[in-house]
Amino acid sequence: MENFTFHNPTRLHFGQGQIAQLDKEFPANARILLLAGGGSIKQNGVLAQVKQALGNRLVHEFWGVEANPDYDTLMKAVELVRREKLEWILPVGGGSVLDGAKFVAAAVNYPRDPWQILVTNGTDVTSALPIGAVLTLPATGSEANGAFVISRRAIKEKLHFISPLVYPRFSVIDPATTFSLPPRQIANGIGDTFCHVMEQYLTYPADAAVQDRFAEGILRTLIEVAPKTLADPTNYAARANLVWSATCALQGIIGVGVPQDWASHTIGHELTALHGIDHACTLGIVMPQVLQLERTTRHAKLLQYAERVWDLHDGSDEARIDAAIAKTRAFYESIGIKTRLQDYNVPASTAAEVARRLTARGVHTFGDRNHLTPAKTEQILRAAA
Amino acid sequence: MENFTFHNPTRLHFGQGQIAQLDKEFPANARILLLAGGGSIKQNGVLAQVKQALGNRLVHEFWGVEANPDYDTLMKAVELVRREKLEWILPVGGGSVLDGAKFVAAAVNYPRDPWQILVTNGTDVTSALPIGAVLTLPATGSEANGAFVISRRAIKEKLHFISPLVYPRFSVIDPATTFSLPPRQIANGIGDTFCHVMEQYLTYPADAAVQDRFAEGILRTLIEVAPKTLADPTNYAARANLVWSATCALQGIIGVGVPQDWASHTIGHELTALHGIDHACTLGIVMPQVLQLERTTRHAKLLQYAERVWDLHDGSDEARIDAAIAKTRAFYESIGIKTRLQDYNVPASTAAEVARRLTARGVHTFGDRNHLTPAKTEQILRAAA
Repeated sequence: MENFTFHNPTRLHFGQGQIAQLDKEFPANARILLLAGGGSIKQNGVLAQVKQALGNRLVHEFWGVEANPDYDTLMKAVELVRREKLEWILPVGGGSVLDGAKFVAAAVNYPRDPWQILVTNGTDVTSALPIGAVLTLPATGSEANGAFVISRRAIKEKLHFISPLVYPRFSVIDPATTFSLPPRQIANGIGDTFCHVMEQYLTYPADAAVQDRFAEGILRTLIEVAPKTLADPTNYAARANLVWSATCALQGIIGVGVPQDWASHTIGHELTALHGIDHACTLGIVMPQVLQLERTTRHAKLLQYAERVWDLHDGSDEARIDAAIAKTRAFYESIGIKTRLQDYNVPASTAAEVARRLTARGVHTFGDRNHLTPAKTEQILRAAA
Repeated sequence: MENFTFHNPTRLHFGQGQIAQLDKEFPANARILLLAGGGSIKQNGVLAQVKQALGNRLVHEFWGVEANPDYDTLMKAVELVRREKLEWILPVGGGSVLDGAKFVAAAVNYPRDPWQILVTNGTDVTSALPIGAVLTLPATGSEANGAFVISRRAIKEKLHFISPLVYPRFSVIDPATTFSLPPRQIANGIGDTFCHVMEQYLTYPADAAVQDRFAEGILRTLIEVAPKTLADPTNYAARANLVWSATCALQGIIGVGVPQDWASHTIGHELTALHGIDHACTLGIVMPQVLQLERTTRHAKLLQYAERVWDLHDGSDEARIDAAIAKTRAFYESIGIKTRLQDYNVPASTAAEVARRLTARGVHTFGDRNHLTPAKTEQILRAAA
C-alpha cells in the first residue's frame, strides 16, 4: 500500500426528508446564494422543501447553471454574491450545479481574475465561502469532495480544480429527490459511477486489500441495483443504494494508497468536446477498449475483477479476461449506454483527431503507469469504432 | 436503508515515516501534552521519531496511562495541562492512550467534576482541546472516531462517552510502528476488529448494499491477512492491511444507515470486569454463541455471511449457518484466541452472575432488535462453558 493522507470533512445527511436539516445547518442570520440549474427542482418539490427549511433567512436565487457549468455564467453569480455580501453558497442540483458552487465560493474573495484559479489549479487560492449542498442527481460525487470542472465556452476551454477549501461543509442527499429524473440521467449516473470505481481499481496490484474489496463492493452493488432502479424508479431501497454508491465512489475512501488511472476520462473528455456525447456514454465507449489494449499490463487486476466482480472462475486466464471485458461492455449496453462510436454517428477518423488534440495540448503520457500515449489513444478509439 | 448523518473530520496520515507529519500539523508555538503508556515507544524508536518531528516545541510528557485507562491517572494529566497551560493533546500509543487523551481533552475546560462528563455521557461538554494522535496498536479505531471508554477502579465503574468534539484533528498511522508488538496483542487486534465489523453487520437485512459489501470486505481481508501478519510480523503489506482494516471498521462508514448490535460487547465487558479476560478474548467466547442463540432472528444475514464471507454455497440453509458459526469460532482459535470459558478457568456459574449484574445495572434489553435479556445472556454463557 502506498502512503496516503485521507481527509474528508463533509457532513452528509442522507435519507428521506433530510432537506429539513438545512434549518439546523445554516446560521439563523446566514446570507445565502441559492444556485440552481433549470426548473426541475420547482416541478419535483425540492425547491419548496428547501425554502421551507430556510424559513426567513435572506436568500438570493441564481438560476441557469448549465450542464458543464460555464465560467461566464458563474461570474454573474460571483457578482451577485459580492454585491449582496452573501456568505454561504447553497447549490441545489446535480454535479454541474455543485461544481459551479465551488467555483463561485473560491472566486468571490479571489484577488485576481478568477479564471486564474483554474489556470493555476488553485495553488494561490487561500479561502472560499462555505458551501452547503442539496444533491438531486447521483453521479459525480461532487457532494463529498473538493473537485470541480468548469468550462469556458468563449475560449473553448474546460479545466478542473482540486482543493480542500471547497469541500462542502455539509451535503443533503435524499434519494427520493431523484425519483423524477429521466432514465437517461439515471443510466448516465450508473455508468459514470461504475467508471469512477474502475479508474481507482482496475490498474495493478498494490497490496491494498480493503480498498480493492470496497471497490469491488461498489461495482457489485451497481450491477445488482442498476436493472432494479431503472425498471422501478420510485423504489426507494434500490435508488438509495445507487445514490450512496455514487457518493462512496468519489469521496476518497476507495482511492487511498492505490495507483489510479483516469485514462478513460482523459480520452472520453475529448469525445464530449468534439461530438457532444454525454460524459457517461464516452466512458462506455472508451473503457472496455482501454482494458482490451492494456490487458497485459493489467493482467493480474483483470483476473481479480473477473473472479470477484463477475464470478468468472472457469476457463483459461485469457478466456476469463475476455469474458470480464465483454461483461463490462454488456453492462453499459444493458443500461442503455451504447458502446460504439458508430452508435453516435461518429466516424472512425475521430481517433486520429483525438490523438492530435492530446498531442497539441501536451498530453504525451497518462494512465496508471503513465505509459498511455496519443498513439495508443488512436488505437483504442479505432477499436471502439 | 435507514436515514443517517455521516461526518468524520479526522485527517489520517497513513504509512511508513508519516510521524514526520507532526511537524506540519502542530503550530510552531504549540504547547503540547505528550500522553503515553509504558515504555515500549522508547524501545521501538517511536518516541524518538515523535521528538524529532516536534523539534523545539514545548512538550510536557505524561507517562503511565494503563490498559483500560483510569480516571484517577488521567486526572493527574488534566492537572498538568491546566498548570502548564498546554493547548494540544498528543497521545502516542494504542486505544487506551488515545481514549485517555480524549477524556483529558474534554476535562481540561469542563467547569464541574469531570467524572460527570461520563455520567452524563457528555451532554454538557461544549469544548475540548485539540488532539493529534500517533497510533501504535491496531484495534479500537479510536484514532478516527469520537468515542472513549474510561474506568474508575476506585468505584468499580467503567463508562463510555461519544462526542463529535473529541475526534482527533489528525492521526498518524504507521503500520511499521506495530512490528514489535507481541503476537498476543496483534491477535487481540484482529479479534477485536472482526467483532467490530460483525456488530454492525450480522443483524438483519436493511437494504444497505454498499455497507454490507464494505463490512464483508473487511472480514475477508482479516481472514486473509491474519495468518500472514501473525507468521511474519515485519511483512509491511500484510500489517498495513490489518491496520487499515482496524481503522475502517470503526471510523463510521460501514455502520451508517444499518441496525447495530453490540450484544457481544455488552456481555464481553462483564467477563473482563469479573475475570480480567482480555477484551478480544471475551468477544471470541461470546460472539459465536450469540449467533447460535439468535440464528432464527438473524437467519437472512447469517446465510449472506456464510456465502459471501466464507464461500459456503452447498447444503441446507441450516447446515450453511452451522458451518459459518463454526468457521467464526475456528477463526478466533486459529489466531490463538480461545473460545470457551473453561479455557480461561472460568466456571459455568459465571453465566448466572453476569445475568445478575446486568439486571442490577438496569440492562434489561439490548442487541440489534433490543430483545436480548439477562436470561438469554445466561443461556449464551452456559453454551460457552
